[in-house]
Amino acid sequence: MKNKKEINAGIIIIGNEVLSGRTKDINTSTLSLWLNSLGVQVKEVRIIPDIEKDIIETINTFKNKFSYVFTTGGIGPTHDDITAESVSKAFNIEYGYHKEALSILEKYYNPSEFSEGRKKMAMMPMTAKLILNPTSGAPGFYVENVFSLPGVPSILKSMLGGLDHLITGGAPILSHTINLRTVESEIAKSLTQVQNNNQDVEIGSYPFFRAGKLGVSIVVRSSDKAKIDTCNNEILKFVAEQKIQIVNEV
Amino acid sequence: MKNKKEINAGIIIIGNEVLSGRTKDINTSTLSLWLNSLGVQVKEVRIIPDIEKDIIETINTFKNKFSYVFTTGGIGPTHDDITAESVSKAFNIEYGYHKEALSILEKYYNPSEFSEGRKKMAMMPMTAKLILNPTSGAPGFYVENVFSLPGVPSILKSMLGGLDHLITGGAPILSHTINLRTVESEIAKSLTQVQNNNQDVEIGSYPFFRAGKLGVSIVVRSSDKAKIDTCNNEILKFVAEQKIQIVNEV
Repeated sequence: MKNKKEINAGIIIIGNEVLSGRTKDINTSTLSLWLNSLGVQVKEVRIIPDIEKDIIETINTFKNKFSYVFTTGGIGPTHDDITAESVSKAFNIEYGYHKEALSILEKYYNPSEFSEGRKKMAMMPMTAKLILNPTSGAPGFYVENVFSLPGVPSILKSMLGGLDHLITGGAPILSHTINLRTVESEIAKSLTQVQNNNQDVEIGSYPFFRAGKLGVSIVVRSSDKAKIDTCNNEILKFVAEQKIQIVNEV
Repeated sequence: MKNKKEINAGIIIIGNEVLSGRTKDINTSTLSLWLNSLGVQVKEVRIIPDIEKDIIETINTFKNKFSYVFTTGGIGPTHDDITAESVSKAFNIEYGYHKEALSILEKYYNPSEFSEGRKKMAMMPMTAKLILNPTSGAPGFYVENVFSLPGVPSILKSMLGGLDHLITGGAPILSHTINLRTVESEIAKSLTQVQNNNQDVEIGSYPFFRAGKLGVSIVVRSSDKAKIDTCNNEILKFVAEQKIQIVNEV
């Protein structure tokens, strides 16, 4: 599935707390928006439980299927944090104390605070490269094209800045949204025509309810600004013809 | 993967808008909490694009892997709504106007409003059974163990009440949460001991930042109330010994 034209990514959300419904996943959105800005399209997300076999299988599938793979969750100090060991097994790399990670954690904590639990956060594939953590010390890591980040959204977000230079994307994916005061069925036919005229532009149609009013967002996505403009003009043409109110364009 | 003891489910979120990061998925949480209450555990979620081949493959994998499968999104009137046709192909059932669905939509709309776009919402696997939609008319549908629901969260939620009687779960999964004023690394060792003593109870540990303060939620899950209680007592024992402050229990 890797090809030279498209640089893509897959995300693996590891955590029973998301599958149980207790926690709403927002890391997908954070990662996808960041990857889009770097010209990388997210093609698939899997949310899987804290089960070693499932994690290893999913990593092995994704690392061959996508240009980049991101895992979130399961790299903390507790018994249910098994991502680092699973990545080691997926790549057949020894799992143990990572020298550089241990040194970072030793500097981060007072010697009296540096408990066994905290030391565990330096255990990972021993030849992994580190992803620095400006928020809470414990680093993430990457092996080949698989990047392992923590599950806590604010910490994950703080670590992305340090990753930009490691990701080589294609042209950034641009998008333009036209919000209309209409319902999908009123524009379905015209929009199909626009999609047929512009096959390599992605046109999405999403109903919304906002401030008690119905509307539809039409989102046009492409890495080519000129193609987006052509597509937009066709949309605005039928919108004018059908006398549909434009809420705004963003 | 189907077995008689555990009734499980997989969720397929269909939509480019989630993969692009534009929309945060909250349907997983809604479906998981509802399924938990019926004694069904969600084992995997996949977020996939609006691509027919991907949808068909994922449905075929999931319908054999899980007791129940739920799809969300892609059943509206526009060109990017291809879930119904994909389900038809996955099950090799003719895709066309569903008599009962058409009759529902005819009653829901004035004849002058019943456009081609709206009629499309009656196109689905012709032998599917319907899932009634109390919010906006257009029904969902199910074929064997695969249930197709809309992507708009409020509409999806309104349709679950009508589905309860179709889902036969195991014992409901109970959970108990203890929120502690501590950090994970302080309790990692004790918690590992408790997990080792209670192997068939799921113990999750989740750091939180709330009102500017750090804490850890310990979530204990099982269908057996007595096992949860035993586990809780062991947790409360080490919490007292380590003089950790309990924020609350829920």
